[in-house]
Amino acid sequence: MTSVKFVFLFLSISFSALAQKDYKLWLQYNRITNSTIASEYKNNIQGIVSLGNSETSGIAVKELENGIAGMLGNKLEIKTEIKRENNLIIGSQLSLNPDLQKALQADFDKISNEGFIIKSISFKNKKQLVISGKNDVAVLYGVFNFLRLMQTNKSIKNLSIADSPKTNIRILNHWDNLDRTVERGYAGFSLWNWQKLPDFTDQRYIDYARANASIGINGAVLTNVNANALILTPQYLEKVEALTNVFRPYGIKVYLTARFSAPIEIGNLKTADPIDPEVINWWKNKAAEIYKRIPDFGGFLVKANSEGQPGPQNYGRDHVDGANMLADAVAPFGGVIMWRAFVYSEHDANDRAKQAYAEFQPYDGKFKENVIVQVKNGAIDFQPREPFHPLFGAMPKTPLMMEFQITQEYLGFSTHLVFLPKLFQEVLESDTYQKGKGSTVAKVIDGTLYQNKLTGIAGVSNIGNDLNWTGHPFAQANWYGFGRLAWNPYLDSETIADEWLRCTFSNDENFIKPVKNMMINSREAVVNYMTPLGLHHIMDTGHHYGPGPWVSNLSRPEWNPVYYHKADKNGIGFDRSKLGTNATSQYAPKIEKLFDTAETCPEKDLLWFHHVSWDYKLKNGQTLWNGLALKYQEGVNQVKEMQNVWNQAEKYVDSERFNEVKMLLEIQQKEAKWWRDACLLYFQQFSGKELPAGVEKPTQTLEYFKSLKFPFAPGNG
Amino acid sequence: MTSVKFVFLFLSISFSALAQKDYKLWLQYNRITNSTIASEYKNNIQGIVSLGNSETSGIAVKELENGIAGMLGNKLEIKTEIKRENNLIIGSQLSLNPDLQKALQADFDKISNEGFIIKSISFKNKKQLVISGKNDVAVLYGVFNFLRLMQTNKSIKNLSIADSPKTNIRILNHWDNLDRTVERGYAGFSLWNWQKLPDFTDQRYIDYARANASIGINGAVLTNVNANALILTPQYLEKVEALTNVFRPYGIKVYLTARFSAPIEIGNLKTADPIDPEVINWWKNKAAEIYKRIPDFGGFLVKANSEGQPGPQNYGRDHVDGANMLADAVAPFGGVIMWRAFVYSEHDANDRAKQAYAEFQPYDGKFKENVIVQVKNGAIDFQPREPFHPLFGAMPKTPLMMEFQITQEYLGFSTHLVFLPKLFQEVLESDTYQKGKGSTVAKVIDGTLYQNKLTGIAGVSNIGNDLNWTGHPFAQANWYGFGRLAWNPYLDSETIADEWLRCTFSNDENFIKPVKNMMINSREAVVNYMTPLGLHHIMDTGHHYGPGPWVSNLSRPEWNPVYYHKADKNGIGFDRSKLGTNATSQYAPKIEKLFDTAETCPEKDLLWFHHVSWDYKLKNGQTLWNGLALKYQEGVNQVKEMQNVWNQAEKYVDSERFNEVKMLLEIQQKEAKWWRDACLLYFQQFSGKELPAGVEKPTQTLEYFKSLKFPFAPGNG
Repeated sequence: MTSVKFVFLFLSISFSALAQKDYKLWLQYNRITNSTIASEYKNNIQGIVSLGNSETSGIAVKELENGIAGMLGNKLEIKTEIKRENNLIIGSQLSLNPDLQKALQADFDKISNEGFIIKSISFKNKKQLVISGKNDVAVLYGVFNFLRLMQTNKSIKNLSIADSPKTNIRILNHWDNLDRTVERGYAGFSLWNWQKLPDFTDQRYIDYARANASIGINGAVLTNVNANALILTPQYLEKVEALTNVFRPYGIKVYLTARFSAPIEIGNLKTADPIDPEVINWWKNKAAEIYKRIPDFGGFLVKANSEGQPGPQNYGRDHVDGANMLADAVAPFGGVIMWRAFVYSEHDANDRAKQAYAEFQPYDGKFKENVIVQVKNGAIDFQPREPFHPLFGAMPKTPLMMEFQITQEYLGFSTHLVFLPKLFQEVLESDTYQKGKGSTVAKVIDGTLYQNKLTGIAGVSNIGNDLNWTGHPFAQANWYGFGRLAWNPYLDSETIADEWLRCTFSNDENFIKPVKNMMINSREAVVNYMTPLGLHHIMDTGHHYGPGPWVSNLSRPEWNPVYYHKADKNGIGFDRSKLGTNATSQYAPKIEKLFDTAETCPEKDLLWFHHVSWDYKLKNGQTLWNGLALKYQEGVNQVKEMQNVWNQAEKYVDSERFNEVKMLLEIQQKEAKWWRDACLLYFQQFSGKELPAGVEKPTQTLEYFKSLKFPFAPGNG
Repeated sequence: MTSVKFVFLFLSISFSALAQKDYKLWLQYNRITNSTIASEYKNNIQGIVSLGNSETSGIAVKELENGIAGMLGNKLEIKTEIKRENNLIIGSQLSLNPDLQKALQADFDKISNEGFIIKSISFKNKKQLVISGKNDVAVLYGVFNFLRLMQTNKSIKNLSIADSPKTNIRILNHWDNLDRTVERGYAGFSLWNWQKLPDFTDQRYIDYARANASIGINGAVLTNVNANALILTPQYLEKVEALTNVFRPYGIKVYLTARFSAPIEIGNLKTADPIDPEVINWWKNKAAEIYKRIPDFGGFLVKANSEGQPGPQNYGRDHVDGANMLADAVAPFGGVIMWRAFVYSEHDANDRAKQAYAEFQPYDGKFKENVIVQVKNGAIDFQPREPFHPLFGAMPKTPLMMEFQITQEYLGFSTHLVFLPKLFQEVLESDTYQKGKGSTVAKVIDGTLYQNKLTGIAGVSNIGNDLNWTGHPFAQANWYGFGRLAWNPYLDSETIADEWLRCTFSNDENFIKPVKNMMINSREAVVNYMTPLGLHHIMDTGHHYGPGPWVSNLSRPEWNPVYYHKADKNGIGFDRSKLGTNATSQYAPKIEKLFDTAETCPEKDLLWFHHVSWDYKLKNGQTLWNGLALKYQEGVNQVKEMQNVWNQAEKYVDSERFNEVKMLLEIQQKEAKWWRDACLLYFQQFSGKELPAGVEKPTQTLEYFKSLKFPFAPGNG
């Protein structure tokens, strides 16, 4: 009777817990079904010894306790002294007894302040497993790493891990407005409920911090780069402080965006000129006010003189003047200024792709040491594919941080399954040749190329208040993968996909293999059905939803898709070679040469750098027109294949998530066809050629596609 | 070992399921801890016999199965034939075998088409329990009702229930915009993800429909009364259709708001004049188009010529012209028009409270039979307390439906714990005397006073995409209570609170008694600390957050709080007696007389109807000033008492919900003091009197309170 009761209990609970699977992200802690592995774990983990006594230690131990209870089904005793063998010993370096500290000294020497050790040791002739680090947050990182080993069914018998993050600032940029709309947000609305802050702590803040800590993210910019100065008023700082208090035990520092004109808007000054003494003073006082509330406040992220935002140029000053003035304000408190290089001027008729480099490269060496320049991965704006930004490697005396976009502004919103770590890896692996062969973007970012002390990677968040956080269950993998790459920019995206799938869904190889493959190929699929062969920024304007290659009526030329593809009867593509805008000259000579000639330019970037004729012969012998059309078709075919793979995965996944992904792939397939048909019909007007064999005929007219309007597409503005 | 494992399993699962308690609303189906009751249930429910085969029947049986599994811990076998005894037999009238139909004929005769039967019977000498109704949705209502009996630990040994809803249209009005903002929404943003519709069915749509069905709500107006015509375009109708398909099996009909100027905005007509043949034709075609997609579409809700919305008066026509034109368009398909009486003109300098009556009462008998006029509970706008709207009972030949506001626009947003069924009950019980004593508002609404066929109650939804649906865990009780009162407007709010607490939290009497008491008193508390003694609409303007009795600068006089309280050195209050605006004359003579004299007017409505001096003697002998100040203090004290009660409840509630409510009560207490201090400091300028003993001194100045600004308070516009 008793056992029957328990089975029923299990059934009813698993029913009611179903809707929460999505919410739990990669921290599912599912019961381990492989009995060999489960026995190994049980044998090696017979108790937990917790040596810390901070809030963070409490969190680490609770996480371990619950993770192990979920995966092994037993709740372990938490001890404060080491008795018997096979204990998990959890504590920071100083909390360990002197003998243990000594035994691990060589390992501690290997790690940074944020690094951790997971080590199987024999201590007083008893086998133990120690998770440690130089402070409690580092220990928490170690705990999450250890739990991941278990989630991915790795052996824990003989561990000797000493791992440190390769960058200092591993940060999410939230483009969240104070009214809770999220610019380029496709997963609902902002998590930050300013109305109920500071007195109401939403459980979601805690769960957000925990998820970030589990992948090593250590900072969050709470507010949109298109900033509102009100966030810097006491009314809001009190709310920010409350969030900071929630995040601190998880090692998450809080940053804010600084609106450059704040001294005018909330300070009652007449100017925001960065060399005006009153302005300088205002920011100094503001920084002091913030640090009084939040002693570990991270600093400011600034978008200045870009897309209408105010900045130092409004007063005839430059970015260095602006950044350094703010840097001085936060320097006494250890704060940093992340100054964005995403600038392009409406007054500059030249190639938009060249402007950030042209403007910022000459500033090399002029920024204060607590300034880091935040550079988007490519020179335009988070396209499905861009060549790496020419600034990387080109400012040896200036720390540059990467800005990736995790939210899929230009890659299908949260409806398309696109595994972004593949894109991120492509950028990080790119060799800039700025200091000879091997001068990869990753080495610029982690500071090893030019020995920068200040390093960082930012990801524009894809998180919102949707029940599943990211809108698409697979978009969780992009949050996860961003965190993993921020910790280690040399990680392979396939490893990341593997980890994520195991932690999120299942360790069954019959599931992992095809689904991982689907993820890895998904990025090339979106390039193919949206912007193959180097095309870019031909999305519909404003909201960027769907194709809009025909748009040509916006006031600024570089806001129009026609500016980017330049299709005419002679051909297609943006000539950035020395015969064109000479953007290629911004790269190191070796790369410049490669990009500058159509024949040597990687075909994936062909139309980014060259205007070529419709009859141009691709490497596979096809004409450009045929090759382009076939690429669009290939993208559609790839989505169909993704659908096939997912349908086969049904038996490994709970029905709710299975159905969600199935419905979303169906939309993705429809939209891939929409992209193919709309773009090919539009470009066909110029090429004047038939679609090649193998490309499906469009079922609607170009006029139909042009007539589509989406006034309430999310994330716009 | 085995039993130990199971215990651990339970622990780990209950940890991970924690965050979902809020999400599960009143459908927790917690294990029944009273063993006597549990045995009774187990003995009486040994199997389920399911006779239906529709989607709705499937839902009903699954609900029963899961509900019983949760409460009793055993998963019952679902059979399709009656074997043995003590079965729950589930099926509509026609699905029952003829013998059973015959045995229940007397019961079926008692119920309406939406009513249900729950009956213990002896059938072929075996004891059985039948849940039935005239169709499958009615059976679903019966199932939810039966599960509620179990959730509230009622005996099921000898049941004989035949219950029907007393109104036809039991509907939620969602003031949801197409960009997913919610006008007067304080629980996040709209559930309707228009971007992903029609192809993506969010699990939340299903859970929403299920929750509504569980309390008998049978309709939803998806869009804001301040309407956008785009919802009527094919692009959106396709999305509406998809939602309708999700809701249909749960008995929820979909309605839309119709923007009166839609023929111009999306129909390319030059006019929206309701007697223009092209306009008439346009709406006829639009209705046909909608009904082709959605054969059971409910109809339109219309806000016309109110607060800037377009309407028939733009063309010199009246509300009857507008409503009847739309009524003709939907009549062939069985649709209804819900036409709002919430009108007040900026060109009418007279008392705003009089205008809806003045304008609509003369239309009595002129509307088509598929028009129902939707009247707010009071003559102003969803205040903490208003006398019942004078239109109730005053239009014998016109169906009137009630419009309650569940979202707490004027009652503390989703931060204040206010149990609204107490307010709703006060309105429904009010005697209009329009057809002699006993002519209660409830009888107007359920049609029994004037034998209306078309009846309805609308509630402006408090639902958003917050994890807990309503922002405040206790605001779920207002959704629940609205549904229960829509089904039966004569229910006592205490009964509702009792049911809700048991279903949502616990059956422990030590919990129920004090917490129920707290809920019941919570409505008077908010009246006391915001608008005691008949004060109204003195909230800050626009967002309506916090006190703003001083506001006097808005363009329309009746948008300013000073218009409503009329405080001056002689006294305070709005003279609506025959010496004033004579609004009292809109009530039946008996009520008119009562309200018209300060001495007979209920003190709770005193300042609504009368301008009285600061020294006016209240019934308890206090001066008005002292009485007013003490009422404000009483409100604050009541919130403190609520906090005490809740703190005592800790051991009966999961820690997450306990802490949420605790934090929210803390905010409510702060805000109650803010209200008290700001209002008393402001009114004190006119009274010139000291605060009486017992009233705490304000800790801030009036200037401080006046300086507070909340530019991003939610729900505004």
